[in-house]
Amino acid sequence: MKAINLKEKFSLFDDYWSPKIIADLNSHQVKCAKFKGEFTWHQHDVDEMFLVVQGSLKLFVENQDKPVLINQGEMIVIPRKMRHCPVAENEAYVLIIEPNDVVNTGDVQNHHTIEKIPRI
Amino acid sequence: MKAINLKEKFSLFDDYWSPKIIADLNSHQVKCAKFKGEFTWHQHDVDEMFLVVQGSLKLFVENQDKPVLINQGEMIVIPRKMRHCPVAENEAYVLIIEPNDVVNTGDVQNHHTIEKIPRI
Repeated sequence: MKAINLKEKFSLFDDYWSPKIIADLNSHQVKCAKFKGEFTWHQHDVDEMFLVVQGSLKLFVENQDKPVLINQGEMIVIPRKMRHCPVAENEAYVLIIEPNDVVNTGDVQNHHTIEKIPRI
Repeated sequence: MKAINLKEKFSLFDDYWSPKIIADLNSHQVKCAKFKGEFTWHQHDVDEMFLVVQGSLKLFVENQDKPVLINQGEMIVIPRKMRHCPVAENEAYVLIIEPNDVVNTGDVQNHHTIEKIPRI
């Protein structure tokens, strides 16, 4: 058994909007992802947790004019079925915790969709 | 919707070994806890995640002479049924993610057992 160093994990990849599984937690997976630019409006049938490890992130959510700002050291749980779109003006490192086999683009299929999330 | 600031949450309490629920994530809860000193050897029937937000932590686990050191910015998933005992020589701030209604002392009942985990 060994601790998982988040900085080390984030140093292992450079691609944006491409989560990597770093641990399993019961029915959930813990993932690292780098965000930069604008993602895709989508929703999931399950809650999704974002914890910003470095940088900051704007989370646009349906029926809300202003995005939710999530700074380093802050987290949010995006409730199931809430349509959302993350935007990172500058690079952000995000820890994601969500149920196994969640598709990153939820109910949407496009160039951001990743069929099989790799483990690092 | 608003981001949850971890530092702010940790500023709301001072008691050690006394987790507070800060968010719900599907079947799981996200908790903040301050560790200092030695806890209690115990086990859970489910996996438990620790992320060290400040300070460091030694996790003693069964059948392993040396503890696992978990520094700030590091995390671990303690597998279900693995007997363990966290020790923090100095104060440590820990984010815990585990299934709803997990008892903090697992299969052991003693002065550390908290019957109802409060929300902050």
